[in-house]
Amino acid sequence: MIAIGERINGMFTDIKNAIAAQDKGPVQMWAKKQLEHGADYLDVNVGTASKTPAETIKWLVQAIAEAVPDAPIALDSPKMEVMKAGLEACKQSGIKKILINSTTGQMDKLQAYFPLVNEYNASIITLAMDERGIPKDVDYRVEVGATIIATAMEFGIDPERIFLDPICMPVKHAQVQQPFILEAVRQFTMICDPRPHITCGLSNTGQGTLKKELVNATILALLIGAGLDSAIVDVCDEHLMHSMITTELLLGNAIYSDDYIKAYMQRAR
Amino acid sequence: MIAIGERINGMFTDIKNAIAAQDKGPVQMWAKKQLEHGADYLDVNVGTASKTPAETIKWLVQAIAEAVPDAPIALDSPKMEVMKAGLEACKQSGIKKILINSTTGQMDKLQAYFPLVNEYNASIITLAMDERGIPKDVDYRVEVGATIIATAMEFGIDPERIFLDPICMPVKHAQVQQPFILEAVRQFTMICDPRPHITCGLSNTGQGTLKKELVNATILALLIGAGLDSAIVDVCDEHLMHSMITTELLLGNAIYSDDYIKAYMQRAR
Repeated sequence: MIAIGERINGMFTDIKNAIAAQDKGPVQMWAKKQLEHGADYLDVNVGTASKTPAETIKWLVQAIAEAVPDAPIALDSPKMEVMKAGLEACKQSGIKKILINSTTGQMDKLQAYFPLVNEYNASIITLAMDERGIPKDVDYRVEVGATIIATAMEFGIDPERIFLDPICMPVKHAQVQQPFILEAVRQFTMICDPRPHITCGLSNTGQGTLKKELVNATILALLIGAGLDSAIVDVCDEHLMHSMITTELLLGNAIYSDDYIKAYMQRAR
Repeated sequence: MIAIGERINGMFTDIKNAIAAQDKGPVQMWAKKQLEHGADYLDVNVGTASKTPAETIKWLVQAIAEAVPDAPIALDSPKMEVMKAGLEACKQSGIKKILINSTTGQMDKLQAYFPLVNEYNASIITLAMDERGIPKDVDYRVEVGATIIATAMEFGIDPERIFLDPICMPVKHAQVQQPFILEAVRQFTMICDPRPHITCGLSNTGQGTLKKELVNATILALLIGAGLDSAIVDVCDEHLMHSMITTELLLGNAIYSDDYIKAYMQRAR
């Protein structure tokens, strides 16, 4: 599993305050802590914490690279100019593993984002939706997924650099979507060979439920069982991570030992 | 999910002692308690607790029926004479929902057990193995499963009365089998339409691991995701049952409410 740590986000009060005070401390603390807890990428999201988000994402990337020179970074913004500023900051800071988070499958967006994937040798999260809006069934998700992969190939981008996202939705408000999401993931694995990565914003699913932890851990097991191999998660949520690692164990993606959780956390990445 | 409560088993000390002392108390307590915790069947297994197992299974069935007149019972014995005694006791006690646990797919066994299914209007758990021994791959499991269903049809037994069991194995000693078990379950759902039930002895998987609860809850979610709709479990294991109910919720087999776990436990069965 490729775990994307969600914690460096201006929506969290400590990061918001750190941005306001230009205090690198909390940012660097979360960078190290998440990597220790098994993050494969650090998501970096300015949120609404700054009026100059392009400047702020640069500052966040530089702060992280200062603390962990080779930190893999997932630049998280819906705005193109913020993304470009983040990519430039990654390049200047010598960051080699970069994930663009994210674009939808709208053709004009793919044509704007895919050149950046090539220019910065990055990977990219692509949401399975386009100008028609929020997905309501399996076919729409898979159709957009296939368009994304076909377009990526035109740009010479390997499927391994694409992270398809089926778009997880709250079970509380969109229960009927859950089996569709699982089936879309199953079909994503068959779009091409080698298959693309498949990721999701996991915490959407449990949103607003009273059993958030249980719901998120359970949908994660089901999603991995269907073919998901990445997720944007709270890597410090032990219940979730242990459940994720046990799923990997049972699917044969991690080797059994009595200490399999510890072994997984310490694996080479 | 059809949960088969595993607790009335001579391998547990309190049941063993109750059998030795002919004390109905603990047996009746576990019958009521497991039904309250969501058991759809009560497994009844003499284990090694008696030198006259046929007499003992009768006594157990009568004790349960005395406390809960309409208790659904899963008679659990590898011995034909014990099974027959149990079936007769169920009939005499007015038990209507009976599950025979279990036979393998060996042809001579199927031919001995299937007439009992018809005679007592029972269902039956059929293990996906035959005279060739323990399963080592997907194909063997599915081949035996198909033979079981085909033979059941010759006996006029509907697939809904067959509970195919892929044979769960400890991840500690048989890690490589886990993906095969999941794939066998997936293929079992496609053997015939309407599909057969699929069950398993769940606690086998976590056996000997240091994270037994987590392993069992995780494989259960994966198995249900693959098509399992029944399991022999500790229904009083809250972690396991909550995880099972949440899986059912996410697959659309239970309706969301903030109290979905309570609602599921109280559903009509």
